[in-house]
Amino acid sequence: MDYAIGIDIGGTNTKLGAVDDKGNVFEHHEFKTSDYKDFVSYMHALEAAIRELSDRVPAGAACAGIGIGAPNGNYYKGTIDFAPNLPFGNSAPIVETLRMAFGYSHIYLSNDANAAALGEKIYGGGKNLDHFIVITLGTGLGSGIIVDGKLLLGADGFAGELGHVCAIPGGRVCGCGKRGCLEAYVSATGIKRTFLEMLSKYNGASSIADLSYPQLDAKVIEDAAKAGDIAAKETYEITGALLGRCLADFVCFSRPSVIFLFGGPVKSGDLIFVPTRRALEENSMPVFKGKVKVLPSELPASNAAILGASAMVWHAIESES
Amino acid sequence: MDYAIGIDIGGTNTKLGAVDDKGNVFEHHEFKTSDYKDFVSYMHALEAAIRELSDRVPAGAACAGIGIGAPNGNYYKGTIDFAPNLPFGNSAPIVETLRMAFGYSHIYLSNDANAAALGEKIYGGGKNLDHFIVITLGTGLGSGIIVDGKLLLGADGFAGELGHVCAIPGGRVCGCGKRGCLEAYVSATGIKRTFLEMLSKYNGASSIADLSYPQLDAKVIEDAAKAGDIAAKETYEITGALLGRCLADFVCFSRPSVIFLFGGPVKSGDLIFVPTRRALEENSMPVFKGKVKVLPSELPASNAAILGASAMVWHAIESES
Repeated sequence: MDYAIGIDIGGTNTKLGAVDDKGNVFEHHEFKTSDYKDFVSYMHALEAAIRELSDRVPAGAACAGIGIGAPNGNYYKGTIDFAPNLPFGNSAPIVETLRMAFGYSHIYLSNDANAAALGEKIYGGGKNLDHFIVITLGTGLGSGIIVDGKLLLGADGFAGELGHVCAIPGGRVCGCGKRGCLEAYVSATGIKRTFLEMLSKYNGASSIADLSYPQLDAKVIEDAAKAGDIAAKETYEITGALLGRCLADFVCFSRPSVIFLFGGPVKSGDLIFVPTRRALEENSMPVFKGKVKVLPSELPASNAAILGASAMVWHAIESES
Repeated sequence: MDYAIGIDIGGTNTKLGAVDDKGNVFEHHEFKTSDYKDFVSYMHALEAAIRELSDRVPAGAACAGIGIGAPNGNYYKGTIDFAPNLPFGNSAPIVETLRMAFGYSHIYLSNDANAAALGEKIYGGGKNLDHFIVITLGTGLGSGIIVDGKLLLGADGFAGELGHVCAIPGGRVCGCGKRGCLEAYVSATGIKRTFLEMLSKYNGASSIADLSYPQLDAKVIEDAAKAGDIAAKETYEITGALLGRCLADFVCFSRPSVIFLFGGPVKSGDLIFVPTRRALEENSMPVFKGKVKVLPSELPASNAAILGASAMVWHAIESES
């Protein structure tokens, strides 16, 4: 049995898993990213973690390669560039460093959302689909786009930044410096901002009006909506309506057969899916109406990042054959 | 020398050309589409026209195949479906009919904008590019998207409908039935509608205020703008600003290295390119700023449709080898 190593690098933790080509994660390892102050010391720790993980794998299993999901991971260059929450500087050559240490020919790096899309393609609901989009909702909105069965990378590896299309011209200031970006509205953060607008609109008439800004999050607002809170329900309604309208634009671009949603706010179920699907249909051109599904991701939330990272290895091996 | 036959089917005229793989159109033929009342009689005329064209080609030249650009041309099915200006019914099997008549294995059909994108790829400014977008401005706004060197067709062949992304939420009614579509603003028709808004804003203070609605077109407005007319200049300024903002969204999607503009309004030069490029930069994420060029198409306007259609043949042959 072969396995791929999937690595999920976050600002706080680095998680590793050994994954077979069916998506079974049969060994885990984890260490604190934040214990290391620069790229060189971090890489010593990462190499040690990879060796430790490999030692635990059943005898006879062969490692097919390593996939890494990391913020600002540059697929073409194999470097992590200017990642705000990692002490790695302008351009950290992680793929080359691992290649020298381990000699594998299949070592890949991408950002988290692209990895999620490949995870969906290799192990999840996108297995038999050539055209789909994965939207990941967390602090921000990430996206990975599959075209003709392959990840859309664009001229420099940074294609698929759908969190930063203009959803509301002249709208909210986004973390990227632009105004009105989709992720300023449709993300855990965006949901919180919209709820505050609703709290203003209804002048505090909400069951969670006593919570302060730091106490509010998308889950608290979801629970309030499910208990019937009007301001919270309207928040999810507005979020889904805007997401659906933008999904209709994405359909004009690549005509996917499915758009998968992933992440915390997606667990609210109908609260987000109902208005999203309705707005997608309302804003679709006649030729696309009723043809594009919006579905929850089929990747298990607990291992999604490791699965996505490891999927890059199997995807590359498939593409060769 | 081999040649491909490019066919451009319009509601009024059908134009045919024999094209070598460098984009030289060395024989032309043309007949009236509107002389034929149904698909069967039209196909008799088209087959005769193809034979007549082939007879005039220099001895020894071999036909590599046929490419057809037509409104509502469905690439996957090879049928022209529900084309409003063609008396062909719901689904006209043009590729299959030509295959039975001529036996060529390479016969392809697509819509005009997709054909334009392949024309740019095979003969024009996109020759050495893997990621670019062609935007065609005419009565409407069409688009063809090249990803990884290939035409993006999507799950059903209708990807690349960028004229119908939402540019202004709740804005102008578009011919497709939606509101605020890009082509309701950025197209020859959209330019005329914007000029009328300017004429209202300036209460008739324009050198072309004496022209009635049927007398106005994008070229008349362009000429007025070049002669210093404020209302006409502002019309092009608004058009370019909106186009540039939407191009920034398209960059988030596929990260092209160039966006080519094609069609009548593009001939206005700086009038449209200056505000378009400015708005693209202003609305680009930091990671994309200064990286995507907006350029005029390099296809000659006179033969662009025939070239685009014929390019499908060479593109398919290239993809095989």
